[in-house]
Amino acid sequence: MIVTPELRPAQIGRASGDFYTIATLGSHSALQILKGAHDEGFRTLAITNRKTERLYRSFPFVDEVIAIAEYKDFMGLVPELEKRKLIIVPHGSFVAYLSLEEHKKMRIPYFGNKAVLDWEASRELQRQWLTRAGLTVPRQFKTGAEIDRPVIVKLYGALGGKGYMFVRDSKDFEERAGLLTRNKHILQEYIIGVPLYIHYFYSPLTGRLEIMSMDRRYETNVDSLGRIPAAAQENLDIEPSYVVVGNQPVSLRESMLAEAYQMGENVVRVSKEICGAKGLFGAFSIETIITPDAQFYVMEISARIVAGTNLFIDGSPYSYLYYTEPMSTGRRIAREIKNALLSNSLDVVLDDSSVV
Amino acid sequence: MIVTPELRPAQIGRASGDFYTIATLGSHSALQILKGAHDEGFRTLAITNRKTERLYRSFPFVDEVIAIAEYKDFMGLVPELEKRKLIIVPHGSFVAYLSLEEHKKMRIPYFGNKAVLDWEASRELQRQWLTRAGLTVPRQFKTGAEIDRPVIVKLYGALGGKGYMFVRDSKDFEERAGLLTRNKHILQEYIIGVPLYIHYFYSPLTGRLEIMSMDRRYETNVDSLGRIPAAAQENLDIEPSYVVVGNQPVSLRESMLAEAYQMGENVVRVSKEICGAKGLFGAFSIETIITPDAQFYVMEISARIVAGTNLFIDGSPYSYLYYTEPMSTGRRIAREIKNALLSNSLDVVLDDSSVV
Amino acid sequence: MIVTPELRPAQIGRASGDFYTIATLGSHSALQILKGAHDEGFRTLAITNRKTERLYRSFPFVDEVIAIAEYKDFMGLVPELEKRKLIIVPHGSFVAYLSLEEHKKMRIPYFGNKAVLDWEASRELQRQWLTRAGLTVPRQFKTGAEIDRPVIVKLYGALGGKGYMFVRDSKDFEERAGLLTRNKHILQEYIIGVPLYIHYFYSPLTGRLEIMSMDRRYETNVDSLGRIPAAAQENLDIEPSYVVVGNQPVSLRESMLAEAYQMGENVVRVSKEICGAKGLFGAFSIETIITPDAQFYVMEISARIVAGTNLFIDGSPYSYLYYTEPMSTGRRIAREIKNALLSNSLDVVLDDSSVV
Repeated sequence: MIVTPELRPAQIGRASGDFYTIATLGSHSALQILKGAHDEGFRTLAITNRKTERLYRSFPFVDEVIAIAEYKDFMGLVPELEKRKLIIVPHGSFVAYLSLEEHKKMRIPYFGNKAVLDWEASRELQRQWLTRAGLTVPRQFKTGAEIDRPVIVKLYGALGGKGYMFVRDSKDFEERAGLLTRNKHILQEYIIGVPLYIHYFYSPLTGRLEIMSMDRRYETNVDSLGRIPAAAQENLDIEPSYVVVGNQPVSLRESMLAEAYQMGENVVRVSKEICGAKGLFGAFSIETIITPDAQFYVMEISARIVAGTNLFIDGSPYSYLYYTEPMSTGRRIAREIKNALLSNSLDVVLDDSSVV
Repeated sequence: MIVTPELRPAQIGRASGDFYTIATLGSHSALQILKGAHDEGFRTLAITNRKTERLYRSFPFVDEVIAIAEYKDFMGLVPELEKRKLIIVPHGSFVAYLSLEEHKKMRIPYFGNKAVLDWEASRELQRQWLTRAGLTVPRQFKTGAEIDRPVIVKLYGALGGKGYMFVRDSKDFEERAGLLTRNKHILQEYIIGVPLYIHYFYSPLTGRLEIMSMDRRYETNVDSLGRIPAAAQENLDIEPSYVVVGNQPVSLRESMLAEAYQMGENVVRVSKEICGAKGLFGAFSIETIITPDAQFYVMEISARIVAGTNLFIDGSPYSYLYYTEPMSTGRRIAREIKNALLSNSLDVVLDDSSVV
Repeated sequence: MIVTPELRPAQIGRASGDFYTIATLGSHSALQILKGAHDEGFRTLAITNRKTERLYRSFPFVDEVIAIAEYKDFMGLVPELEKRKLIIVPHGSFVAYLSLEEHKKMRIPYFGNKAVLDWEASRELQRQWLTRAGLTVPRQFKTGAEIDRPVIVKLYGALGGKGYMFVRDSKDFEERAGLLTRNKHILQEYIIGVPLYIHYFYSPLTGRLEIMSMDRRYETNVDSLGRIPAAAQENLDIEPSYVVVGNQPVSLRESMLAEAYQMGENVVRVSKEICGAKGLFGAFSIETIITPDAQFYVMEISARIVAGTNLFIDGSPYSYLYYTEPMSTGRRIAREIKNALLSNSLDVVLDDSSVV
């Protein structure tokens, strides 16, 4: 059913207007998505705001830019986009700027399964999903009084680590609980170990799972605290923060790779039980912390392309095991859409709400 | 003093002697500069010392090696080099070993604008430049008594972070001020956040600015302090040091990329007002610290290729957005010189002191 | 004597069964070894256990998988493997699962020199080797009473940093010495500085040493301690551990590269004096810590491919200086075997125990 990569849409077809356009918001991982789409032969469209417009226009692989005042105005653009022959590839900024309802209302062809959004957006449901897949998750506390070890307080919907709070013990929590009353939050056991984010791609066309790359986040200010001698820190009384401003590459000990692969497979398997037959497909990421007994604790799952893949726009040590071209996760998505088109099975890679 | 150069078998077409030779000091980022020059079709010359001679001779892309006793003897070689058809690509070691006056006295074709050196060498002028470009710089203190927060003491002309000193408060400063009396220094607010070095290339031929890559420095001992438990650190009474011995790759959150790009453009724009019409061109780097409110604090600007680009001799995720070949910053420089030659505008990429 | 890379075993020869198979255990750095072997035209065999079997079968460059119950059962497979036309490329898991005696008993063609194993396995002999090569090694203490600074206690044969123990002073040592009685260990001065692992390849065919890549290990929990504010650490009373679960890329300041290269050459030179005429060849790694005076302290030598090279399956900034293809260390090994075959000197790259 799947054609080989050699059968690509001819470049001459580009001008005809008959080819699909891959569109995304100008943020998060848009550059690799659009570069990848271009490299696979698609037309590309970046929907930007006034501040990012210039940046995206400066890249030759961006065929078209539509600038809107603010990303949250995106829904106003939907009627126009629905008339065009395009496919949306969502990333983290979609989840940040569009509500679940808005997501589901859209009829634009959409790469991925929107049903997964419900299971991802709720921290409770997500926990059920991960646990059912046999993954180890950190302990969770219901009230401050229960806390018997350091915890990290995560606000619902907190993005890019903003609003995370490190709490030493229940007394510390009590003193600062006032900061939290406005927002729903969870109290998660603080796991001491090194973070690792594993980037997967599951192909619904071939049924194969691939490990595309890995990273760790680059967070301000926690990733700079260690540079300040302990004695000096005490005078400074620094509050740790976890705002993600970048990413750093990591490779995983090969003897742990089989388990990492298995975790990805389990998550996909369970998703087919809980999110409809299509389940989770395309790019996703499992965010882990590895403890000294080489145990993966799973903090979170992201059901689409994550920003850590931006390190690997020119391919990764892992992607190179599967592909001879520089295969970013963004390009892998475009490759999947192309393979779907070439095998006349576009519906397999799109959400069921899509009107093609 | 000068060792007879070992002329390597030249490739067909190359032997005519009509081609330009790209020359640089065997240090800092010479490998990527010479490899890049070779890949763009130039002849290459490494000027080394006795200790580094063997290393540079071992690479097939180095056509010629001239070994001198010490790098600071470079000026003795200038008359000989002025007779040849070559172009110097400077890097950090030029600034370290040659004075401003020596720089300006040379008539060898020189990639870059020497007028920028004055604005870069003076910490005061550099600060004016950055501020005028709208960048946020850390607070600076004139005297120890003024200090009301941790500061980092930077000696004038300190290279590779050597001689930087972390000072907790004005009392701490007083106690250790004796260490500083010999040298001119500045007292810079210690910004708590994660470092990010952004590598740019501005083409005077096309007027386009490119983000080539990014890194963070690998500094001993501060980047190892965090591995020592706080309790153990106290017994050790460790003095933090900031000696740069390497670099690590980082990617930036894409939503902050437009601002990073804008910072580069602003710095170039202002340079044209203060350093003559040519302004700053070629490779440069802005050294930032990113705070938890996602604010870039600019510590310093380097007006030429920086060592962090050595991570990307085979290209970077960013360079791959513009180029299909592995485009290091060193190769990008050679590409610009080649493009200048091909468009008969070599003077555009050379300092005005160059006698072609 | 050595043929150019263009002369490769023809792909059509693959089916004949006359080509050598490159075999290794499915762990550590097997993916790059087998991918590299495939890219150089060899057949490939992964010997896995039940848990890793699926992972290795999922890669198209793995031609054959033999699954055994446990890696330590490998010797049971040897009679079967000895009948085949294959070459074993060893990595760290061989040393972990097979004794020295088992290593030496094998007659399967084996890439590398087994005589090096004795000098590597004994921490005393290894120290002699490094010292004789002029490298700076950390101070070592014979008894707990001697300790006058922080030390790291390393168990004999400790793998992947497991069982390492940080000890502050002789009192701390006394209190915890009970944990150590069962196992032989050394007390090594704790050097404060940044770790750097340098990956070399020495070709016995050409006599050339190459720097292939560099990394730093990613260790749990020490590489996460710095993210916990000093004040919070005190409450937690965390015991540092050094279990290696991954690697991160680093580049070295170019002015220190000549010394790094020289260290590699010295180690090879001395190995020819102590381990027979063949000495150390193929891949090896020197594990250093760099102090603020830019001094390399050498912690250990690994006499074969190290896991840090897994970051560079698609090549490294250093390998790209020598090779235009993505040259992993695994592929470099296969290239050497191929060059040996093509120049009819296979014995040069195999241990003398090999029966070809």
